[in-house]
Amino acid sequence: MSFSKTLEETAADVARLLPPLQAIFGERAVTSAAVRAHHSHGEGLPDPGQPDLVLYPLSTEEVAAAMKLCHAAEVPVIAFGTGTSMEGHVAAIHGGVCIDLSRMDRILEVSPEALDCRVQAGVTREQLNAQLRSSGLFFAVDPGANASLGGMAATRASGTAAVRYGTMREAVMGLTVVTPDGRIIRTGTRARKSSSGFDLTRLYVGSEGLLGIICEVQLRLFGLPEHVVAAVCQFDSLRAAVDTVIAALQLAVPVARIELLDDAQMEACIRYSRLDEFEARPTLFIEFHGSEAAVAEQVATLEALSADQGGSGFRYADKPEDRTRLWKARHSCYHANLAMHPGWSSMGTDACVPISALVECIVETQADIAASGLYAPIVGHVGDGNFHLGIIYDDADPAARAAAEALAERVALRAIRLGGTCTGEHGVGLHRMGQIEIEHGEAIEVMREIKRALDPKGILNPGKMLRMEPAAASASDVPRGG
Amino acid sequence: MSFSKTLEETAADVARLLPPLQAIFGERAVTSAAVRAHHSHGEGLPDPGQPDLVLYPLSTEEVAAAMKLCHAAEVPVIAFGTGTSMEGHVAAIHGGVCIDLSRMDRILEVSPEALDCRVQAGVTREQLNAQLRSSGLFFAVDPGANASLGGMAATRASGTAAVRYGTMREAVMGLTVVTPDGRIIRTGTRARKSSSGFDLTRLYVGSEGLLGIICEVQLRLFGLPEHVVAAVCQFDSLRAAVDTVIAALQLAVPVARIELLDDAQMEACIRYSRLDEFEARPTLFIEFHGSEAAVAEQVATLEALSADQGGSGFRYADKPEDRTRLWKARHSCYHANLAMHPGWSSMGTDACVPISALVECIVETQADIAASGLYAPIVGHVGDGNFHLGIIYDDADPAARAAAEALAERVALRAIRLGGTCTGEHGVGLHRMGQIEIEHGEAIEVMREIKRALDPKGILNPGKMLRMEPAAASASDVPRGG
Repeated sequence: MSFSKTLEETAADVARLLPPLQAIFGERAVTSAAVRAHHSHGEGLPDPGQPDLVLYPLSTEEVAAAMKLCHAAEVPVIAFGTGTSMEGHVAAIHGGVCIDLSRMDRILEVSPEALDCRVQAGVTREQLNAQLRSSGLFFAVDPGANASLGGMAATRASGTAAVRYGTMREAVMGLTVVTPDGRIIRTGTRARKSSSGFDLTRLYVGSEGLLGIICEVQLRLFGLPEHVVAAVCQFDSLRAAVDTVIAALQLAVPVARIELLDDAQMEACIRYSRLDEFEARPTLFIEFHGSEAAVAEQVATLEALSADQGGSGFRYADKPEDRTRLWKARHSCYHANLAMHPGWSSMGTDACVPISALVECIVETQADIAASGLYAPIVGHVGDGNFHLGIIYDDADPAARAAAEALAERVALRAIRLGGTCTGEHGVGLHRMGQIEIEHGEAIEVMREIKRALDPKGILNPGKMLRMEPAAASASDVPRGG
Repeated sequence: MSFSKTLEETAADVARLLPPLQAIFGERAVTSAAVRAHHSHGEGLPDPGQPDLVLYPLSTEEVAAAMKLCHAAEVPVIAFGTGTSMEGHVAAIHGGVCIDLSRMDRILEVSPEALDCRVQAGVTREQLNAQLRSSGLFFAVDPGANASLGGMAATRASGTAAVRYGTMREAVMGLTVVTPDGRIIRTGTRARKSSSGFDLTRLYVGSEGLLGIICEVQLRLFGLPEHVVAAVCQFDSLRAAVDTVIAALQLAVPVARIELLDDAQMEACIRYSRLDEFEARPTLFIEFHGSEAAVAEQVATLEALSADQGGSGFRYADKPEDRTRLWKARHSCYHANLAMHPGWSSMGTDACVPISALVECIVETQADIAASGLYAPIVGHVGDGNFHLGIIYDDADPAARAAAEALAERVALRAIRLGGTCTGEHGVGLHRMGQIEIEHGEAIEVMREIKRALDPKGILNPGKMLRMEPAAASASDVPRGG
């Protein structure tokens, strides 16, 4: 049941749907070339295809009404948040209708007593935190990009603070979802835990628009920490930096963020973000949250652990503006890397491994990069065992592209072999469909059974995540890590 | 697709399966009356039905072989761990084959470096912790009963330490599952997070044996806390005790356990467990984990918060044997309550609500108990918003049973109305099938679609959790909490 209509057939179907959709959406049903082009891609490499129509719903009921029409006409539907996906999630490779949720941007309810909130799917992370500030609360999942909360739920996003506060898997308490046939369901409750039936919330979190359209998100919040200290520590080797992280995790030091940048990444950041006080050496960016006493204890522990590994003394950023500068530099790695080779492209990897395998995985990968001759700085949320390569290469040179793809593939397979995953937080989209077959083996078929059951016409985000016809060569005989 | 064979038809089918199953299981395929009776019930109220055959597999492959035969013969299969379910999960109401996993009791791998382990499904919580002790690690989910880890995964169990360490939802990293047609799949990885496809691990956790048989469990572990202090504080009112808990949660004090016992529960515990140093007043049992400094800070905060609510001074249990006595008394509530009325039965409730609704829910419930004239002590994991009534009544008196059932139903509906769930940790089983329809509304149909897709013959634990034919009266028009 892979989606089988041609682009022309779908375009004709969408043309027939236009009058009833315009009756509902008015000028919020858009077919202009510029808007369609804008909705054809995220932030990753370019992919083919664009939607035939873009809708801007204001309510869950409008999404359901559009879904019912698209379902009857068997037209693809792709959800779109802020377009910050790295993996081609929003590419309309079969054409169809793009549902842009960005105007569903209302914060519906905030409960400081229950430490939760409910938002429409188009609310962004920064918008939510701006509104929460006066309440003393914050939303903790921080992938860097100012993504929509519906999109973050759909890709099971995480980011720099996951080591302390968890990912979208833990942050989402419940969802309002429109099913492919246009029913509106609510999953989860506001209770912190439940044993009440199948965990639909966790099934839709990370489902990448294949099972339903996420329209509202119930989120867990945290109280703003009393005290925040950021610190930077530099090391002679990547191994020394990673060993410091592992020791901290094994002692259960509740660091709020702990990020690794290798020498190449530091060099790019120093140039791009003018971090002139640092050297191009393997570096940890760390943030501590808690009471003053708790933070002091954490800092002392981390300083001792890094000294054991020959780390430099800590350089502190106490003031909010200094912390912001540091984290802005961290979140600018992508642009910093591209600036090293103007005109070239970036290909990202997203390996995540058990902490016990992190040194081996990173050290092997660094040797692999060196052997490949590619420029590929390493940066990562090492507290989760998750790290990224930004492979910077000349996309006009087929040999360079092939070399970049081969390196990215080796990193993914290495993570799988070491008991980890090919994607810690970016998702599968178009570009890891082969890798997850290796990672999950026979379990992929259960995912397909769920897709067929919940979207029997195969209209939701077709062609992403799951190859609905098994590949000719079975992936199940590739060894799995353990 | 509710299971439609008669008990006699199923018994005849199982009789035909016996020779091929005996060829695999030998004397581990048992049809004796005593063994079948033992596998007909958990710890809750008696339910009808018993299995026609009990198998004791030693390996995942044996489970798969048995499943293939049962699948071909369309015979019900019920997984059995230690038989500690409160909700009739293991009752073989359609007869069939019980798969008792208790001899799959090997701890397959422990990684102190990755802070995880892999166990066969029949390993019990206490067995695992006994083996881990020398490694400095522990497994944190503690439902009181010495349940099997497969069973705990299948019911999404939690217990006293969930406020700090999470429930089985967070503790399970991956599973080995046998599907209804006898395939063996592995879900999840050993990485701490992943965006790689549908979250099958979370789908099987809490699936109560309806989607597959859990054979192995990959679990997250924690380092043993450096310092542990237990304390008890007594209050004049239930409201004062609950308000203390809410204040602690809002300040994000990382208490390891925080349990509420009402006056009736304390009276029963004082008598049963000889806690003579305490009074029959609303009481919090609290445990603190961390470095010595961190624990001291947490204790000071909690003492100040309880003093604000008129609480007594803290009574400490520093020594391991004193802590054990306290927590043993806490975990003996069920027996303590029954001892107050020898010969009577206990009916449990399992409401869990947002913290903001906890005072309202508990205070209303206490008034409801008083108005009902029933004896129903309250005890709960209030840090999660979860509390239980042990309704003690004379099961020989139909009016008493009806009154107990009505009270239990009112507690569940109150929790749902307040934005919570009818079951925080016990699961649905046979006894909350109506309640979860009210709780989930239209989303129940999505659960049914998943059940139909993954178990099309409906042979796995039939008749539990989901009514596969919608009830005559739709539950979707009952108001939901928000």
